[in-house]
Amino acid sequence: MVPADLIDFAHQLADIARAETLRHAGGSVAVENKSGADAFDPVTAADRDAERLMRAAIQEHHPDHGVTGEELGETIGSGRFRWLLDPIDGTRSYTCGLPTWTTLIALLDGDEPVLGIIDAPALDERYVGYAGTGSLSSRGLSTPLRVSSSTRLAEARFSTTDPFLFDGPAGEALARLRKAVRTTRYGHDAYAYARLAAGTLDLVVECDLKPHDYAALIPVVRGAGGVFGDWSGGRDFSSGNVIAAATPQLYDAAVEIMMSAP
Amino acid sequence: MVPADLIDFAHQLADIARAETLRHAGGSVAVENKSGADAFDPVTAADRDAERLMRAAIQEHHPDHGVTGEELGETIGSGRFRWLLDPIDGTRSYTCGLPTWTTLIALLDGDEPVLGIIDAPALDERYVGYAGTGSLSSRGLSTPLRVSSSTRLAEARFSTTDPFLFDGPAGEALARLRKAVRTTRYGHDAYAYARLAAGTLDLVVECDLKPHDYAALIPVVRGAGGVFGDWSGGRDFSSGNVIAAATPQLYDAAVEIMMSAP
Repeated sequence: MVPADLIDFAHQLADIARAETLRHAGGSVAVENKSGADAFDPVTAADRDAERLMRAAIQEHHPDHGVTGEELGETIGSGRFRWLLDPIDGTRSYTCGLPTWTTLIALLDGDEPVLGIIDAPALDERYVGYAGTGSLSSRGLSTPLRVSSSTRLAEARFSTTDPFLFDGPAGEALARLRKAVRTTRYGHDAYAYARLAAGTLDLVVECDLKPHDYAALIPVVRGAGGVFGDWSGGRDFSSGNVIAAATPQLYDAAVEIMMSAP
Repeated sequence: MVPADLIDFAHQLADIARAETLRHAGGSVAVENKSGADAFDPVTAADRDAERLMRAAIQEHHPDHGVTGEELGETIGSGRFRWLLDPIDGTRSYTCGLPTWTTLIALLDGDEPVLGIIDAPALDERYVGYAGTGSLSSRGLSTPLRVSSSTRLAEARFSTTDPFLFDGPAGEALARLRKAVRTTRYGHDAYAYARLAAGTLDLVVECDLKPHDYAALIPVVRGAGGVFGDWSGGRDFSSGNVIAAATPQLYDAAVEIMMSAP
């Protein structure tokens, strides 16, 4: 169960982040490199500013809540609730002026994500899931989220962010999956899970996700009636290897291909 | 030179297509297969309806103009002007409920594309180029299009629709290019050229484009000050292999890598 005031508060956090990320959005975003010279991992001022403002709001209104953010680390809380924040998921899209970057907000009760928000500020789309239900708010209208009824790989609309993140056996498994599905889309990060929840994608497979990447996705996908699991048919996300599917049949079919990879 | 009334008329065509494509947009789009059982090449009712309505408008207002459309073939005109229409570029994104699909409209004077429109209905963004200028209209505001000043591959934001379309030597060249650039994005079809014109992407490389895929892109990219050429440093697009770049230096650097591929 999620207390009603925390649902409202989660929306407030998303509003705070949206104002900040949109204010900085566009082509002139200042980009720096947080992983050294070899890797390009953009962190923008918007990313940190948005997280700082969300943390301040949590500290003010729910000082007993814990917070873990992608940018500014962990604050241990004294209570049962904890927030996981990723102010800009899809920073590459953000810095390339492509509109499908999102803000991810998850509320955990103990270790269980009980509420998730995938907010797409540039598109004015907010996907929310909790307590087995999901909704999409856009342009002042709210509609229920409902996954598709797709059960067969051969008819599935599949998405993964970057095929070149899959190495060795995982790369081979992904190549088999790409050949098995009807169509494949790349590059959408968390927005792909939002569109799966909305019923226009059927399958998403990714590797190496961090808790702040996937925690918010789980209540949204499950709230829309979808399946969110790991590559082995279980619920162990410590490896960061996840599968989201519209139906159990489609999930099982994807597991059959991906479980050959470690 | 583009007669002023034809600029207005091009916008009217884009308005016609936008109403039709948005009317059908979303997850419930009916999809059929136009290339037989092996290939998945979605054609929607929206695609054909939008082209039919644009062709009817051309026939009514400019009966001497030729028309070539992606869906409904070629109509030879008696005059010097000809329209190339692709009602939905990025049909895969369209059928997956992803917002970066576009309508492409090109006006040719003889064989020369003199006006191009890249319209993104789901985003309310219209990119127009002609006579060496370009503009973006969105939410009632019009702003000039201007490419970035990026000259070095190591700093370039690069996009290509599908890396698996590049075979053999072209695939090897693309792999070198991916390693040379700062960041790579996939899956955006013509929208990538629009964002290059807007200055938030720096380089786009693609293969196997058809005239209805690229004709509209040329006036938009060049109108924003960018370079649009082939993989050999020339202007021969019969192979369908194109490079769009923010600057001549970046174009030359991409040619150096891609020209090793046929």
